[in-house]
Amino acid sequence: MSARTTLGIDIGGTNIKGGVLDDQDRLLARSAVETRADEGFEASFARIVALIDELIAAAGVSRNAIAAVGVGVPGPMDHAAGVVRHAPNLDGWVNIPLRRLLTERTGLPCFVENDANAAAFGEFVGGTQRAATDMVMLTLGTGIGGGVILGGRLVRGRFDNAGEVGHMIVALGGRACPCGQRGCLERYASANAIRERLIEAVRAGEKSSLAPAVYGSEPLTAEDVCRAAQQGDEPSQRVWDEACRMLAAACVNLQHVLNPGLIVLAGGLINAGEALLGPVQSYFKELTWKICEDFPRIEPAVLGGDAGLLGAAALAREALLAAGAGHAR
Amino acid sequence: MSARTTLGIDIGGTNIKGGVLDDQDRLLARSAVETRADEGFEASFARIVALIDELIAAAGVSRNAIAAVGVGVPGPMDHAAGVVRHAPNLDGWVNIPLRRLLTERTGLPCFVENDANAAAFGEFVGGTQRAATDMVMLTLGTGIGGGVILGGRLVRGRFDNAGEVGHMIVALGGRACPCGQRGCLERYASANAIRERLIEAVRAGEKSSLAPAVYGSEPLTAEDVCRAAQQGDEPSQRVWDEACRMLAAACVNLQHVLNPGLIVLAGGLINAGEALLGPVQSYFKELTWKICEDFPRIEPAVLGGDAGLLGAAALAREALLAAGAGHAR
Repeated sequence: MSARTTLGIDIGGTNIKGGVLDDQDRLLARSAVETRADEGFEASFARIVALIDELIAAAGVSRNAIAAVGVGVPGPMDHAAGVVRHAPNLDGWVNIPLRRLLTERTGLPCFVENDANAAAFGEFVGGTQRAATDMVMLTLGTGIGGGVILGGRLVRGRFDNAGEVGHMIVALGGRACPCGQRGCLERYASANAIRERLIEAVRAGEKSSLAPAVYGSEPLTAEDVCRAAQQGDEPSQRVWDEACRMLAAACVNLQHVLNPGLIVLAGGLINAGEALLGPVQSYFKELTWKICEDFPRIEPAVLGGDAGLLGAAALAREALLAAGAGHAR
Repeated sequence: MSARTTLGIDIGGTNIKGGVLDDQDRLLARSAVETRADEGFEASFARIVALIDELIAAAGVSRNAIAAVGVGVPGPMDHAAGVVRHAPNLDGWVNIPLRRLLTERTGLPCFVENDANAAAFGEFVGGTQRAATDMVMLTLGTGIGGGVILGGRLVRGRFDNAGEVGHMIVALGGRACPCGQRGCLERYASANAIRERLIEAVRAGEKSSLAPAVYGSEPLTAEDVCRAAQQGDEPSQRVWDEACRMLAAACVNLQHVLNPGLIVLAGGLINAGEALLGPVQSYFKELTWKICEDFPRIEPAVLGGDAGLLGAAALAREALLAAGAGHAR
């Protein structure tokens, strides 16, 4: 079976994005709808089905030209069975046989993926990283997700939970994480953690230019902390600096376990640009070994918000080909 | 080309072991010679060549029945080029084109591998782990080496340095490692580190039943520390316990990055049996997340000293098949 047109869906807490891609992974159409996560599974599911219909119409292709549909979902799942175990940010999404439901409703071969894994694979196939065969991505958003690609293939692991890089322990016995661990990378280097740590510092009495925001009604963001750090605010500098150092330590561990040629940083935090990348790269050099220079390049993602739908579509194509190979046996 | 008889060599600092294996990876013959690492490369090389001849004779097969020879070397290398960059424990082994030299001298297709990677692959193909497709091995000896197997294949990485699990940072800013990092797993959980940390505790004035050994002429080993810990010696308990805790933290990080079904502990330290495995497993449960039970089994290696030569031979067979596939294209 040749690789044909695919359709990718990326379900987020706020929006559901979708796109139709040709056999070269070029976007023929894209669109988005609100998730309305509080309305429960049935309502979200209906909007996904409508979005798929809308995308097929917008792409100007016939329905049976769509070889496969890939859906990225924010939560752990059983990939082979196509069941979403639990999507914490989507009300009522518990043990949902999404692959079967969506295949039945659309009449198209559907596949489900973890959203962070899908985004990593999208960045791999669609980014400037095409030259690499091994890549680890860390997506620095509200939390930290990620994906591992080795030999051009997504690593899923025994329980489909590979790439949970945000829960690598970087500070044994450190800050408590809602996951039940202590010292997770996510507790130091996610946008949420950076914001929370600055608030803690101010509430503990440290002098900071962000104190008015902390005590006022304005929402404080990681970007605010980054900007204040650049303007010399000491608590902000300390929090931002430690986020970069912890990220670098995680990169050193990935270097020694997998020795990838490329580590990609993605997510909202990379809007900080050189203020993030510079310290991460220099801490990496400081923390890593000195006996040989087997260092990964550490680079920002280039695809932005489309990585998730692109990766979901590309993985669906792979799954379809693998299923076809299985039938042929 | 069908898989045929292979020959594996495992070069250690003290002995060079070798074996001939049939197409089911069963040992037809095995032997060993002293390494005499201080006599330089040429002398060791001559002993390897003689060992290969001896093994072929002992196996009772003709020379051209040997499909491939695999050699595990303790140091970083360029696998594709077959060049050993540096074997720190073997005098004069710097930038040695071992694959070419050995192929020329023996007339057989030879391949080189990192010894820890070879041992991990040997345990994978020859151990009870055949049921798993993903496995990470940590070899706890003088240092800590290891290997990563995903989808049944050894992961080498961009610079052939994957599986250097002993240099995962488990204590940021912690104990200095000769590699130039701080806080490497190897500085807490290798046999050397356990011994050194107990000596440091005694020299710092702590009361210990091992003080006579520290100040006497008897060599102190990690096994002594384990035994003293079981008999209630407090510094020994603390050192042993922390080794187990750091190992468990490393296993948690491997869980989240790769989500393997199996982590195997190997090397001299596993002679401690349940005194090692019990605390590592219970610390793992304590340190890992509580949101789902995607835990790897953590088990001791079963092959012992033959894993390295078995893995080197099995990887040589794979390399030969891959080279054949390349020619066929």
